[in-house]
Amino acid sequence: MKVFHDIQTLRVFLDDIRREGKNIGFVPTMGYLHEGHLSLIEASVKENDITVLSIYINPTQFGPDEDLDHYPRDIENDKKLAVDAGANVIFIPDHHIMYKNNHVTYVQVNGLTHQLCGQSRPTHFQGVTTIVSKLFNIVQPNRAYFGQKDAQQAIVIKRMVMDLNMPITIVVCPIMREADGLAMSSRNTYLNPEERQQATVLYEALQKAKALIDSGERSSKTVKAMMTKLIHTKPSATIDYVSIVGADTLEDIEILEDNILVALAVKIGKTRLIDNLQMEVLAYVH
Amino acid sequence: MKVFHDIQTLRVFLDDIRREGKNIGFVPTMGYLHEGHLSLIEASVKENDITVLSIYINPTQFGPDEDLDHYPRDIENDKKLAVDAGANVIFIPDHHIMYKNNHVTYVQVNGLTHQLCGQSRPTHFQGVTTIVSKLFNIVQPNRAYFGQKDAQQAIVIKRMVMDLNMPITIVVCPIMREADGLAMSSRNTYLNPEERQQATVLYEALQKAKALIDSGERSSKTVKAMMTKLIHTKPSATIDYVSIVGADTLEDIEILEDNILVALAVKIGKTRLIDNLQMEVLAYVH
Repeated sequence: MKVFHDIQTLRVFLDDIRREGKNIGFVPTMGYLHEGHLSLIEASVKENDITVLSIYINPTQFGPDEDLDHYPRDIENDKKLAVDAGANVIFIPDHHIMYKNNHVTYVQVNGLTHQLCGQSRPTHFQGVTTIVSKLFNIVQPNRAYFGQKDAQQAIVIKRMVMDLNMPITIVVCPIMREADGLAMSSRNTYLNPEERQQATVLYEALQKAKALIDSGERSSKTVKAMMTKLIHTKPSATIDYVSIVGADTLEDIEILEDNILVALAVKIGKTRLIDNLQMEVLAYVH
Repeated sequence: MKVFHDIQTLRVFLDDIRREGKNIGFVPTMGYLHEGHLSLIEASVKENDITVLSIYINPTQFGPDEDLDHYPRDIENDKKLAVDAGANVIFIPDHHIMYKNNHVTYVQVNGLTHQLCGQSRPTHFQGVTTIVSKLFNIVQPNRAYFGQKDAQQAIVIKRMVMDLNMPITIVVCPIMREADGLAMSSRNTYLNPEERQQATVLYEALQKAKALIDSGERSSKTVKAMMTKLIHTKPSATIDYVSIVGADTLEDIEILEDNILVALAVKIGKTRLIDNLQMEVLAYVH
């Protein structure tokens, strides 16, 4: 496996790969890899000749009071996990390489970025789309892999790629979960044992929402009320949002129908966790 | 010469060109070609194996009261001129191909786009950077060519390419002028004979500014006052701006020094014309 820290050397290496007619798969991450990331690498390895992993804790997607300084990192372990999963190249740029002092250019996806996570994190998605654009232009992959865990991120990036005609296929891979259902996240490491146990309420709320919808419930309000009530049974939980939106528009819906996204963000203690469930709902026939 | 109207067919054609190891030069235009455009094509032909010209009147760079509907067009003549200048490929997309109904993604270069032309055309540069990003992703050129006539546009695009790590070299070519000094522009066709004659005042003002600076003047205010006074001698002229800015920052400067851009936009009758002069100024030694 090759490790690159600067853009120009990586470009030269990948230009050669492309000249050989090989396909490049790309998995952008902020490191502290878990099985969710590894499933993206494995998906890329299956579909491409070369898989590039990037590890970069992108400051522009963190708000002023968020956990940028404390975001967990373990580069040496990441390298081991990545090579075991089949990655061929790791790109670990320094901050001063990614953002020059006079950086002023941002990519914005309007209409899909102010709601859900965008409500409490107003500059988050602009940071994501900008760094992903930069990384795409550096790596120039054929395919790039993102997790369904960050559902809004995946939808925003797919829209960006379509709107800007980026010559890249976006592949979204399923959420990976712990045995008790908690969605894997680098931030799970922040949880103390008690919080860790209570954190399962996110998945539990989604499962109960699914059961309710499967049983015929079509009122968004009713489903969200049930989820909210359940989450409030956990003393360490504070709800950021519990939303049901159209999976294409990300706009709130009242009557559940077609392709919907049930999404939630809950603080467990000081740790903000997200989870979601995308499902196709048939119109209810009386 | 090949003419393409849809993105996918063009992509397939250019992918083959790239696979042969050939370099692609790109000249994005809004058509109604004049010698300014042809000089860009010729520069590209010299430096690349294949030159792609695009002709697309991009609506997102026009304001609501601007001349989108009346922008001059003559595709058949453009094709003849382009092939004579050596272009190999022309891309002429329809509007519905370039912007889908649900288009929401924009590229913004903050700090360089609110002043000069951005002051009276507040959404202009966002439209330019977005369409140029799209065209770059479609054509994936090695080099792209822009005219110094649109000085702010060239500076904004160079910054965008640098900030987003686009793998493209931006080449800026000199302003082409009519015999009497008027900068070539597709919009010159709007001028009636009397206006056409008065329009030379833009270049005249720049020439006099240069002479004044060359003679030792270092006060931006004094130079701009001379230019303004001169332009006001033409009854059909209305000044949009007369500015002297740092050529990198585009911020107003009071004392002329280093790399400066003297830029102006003047309405001659109803036609808005721009011109500029970039020059290196030595600090004045008493």
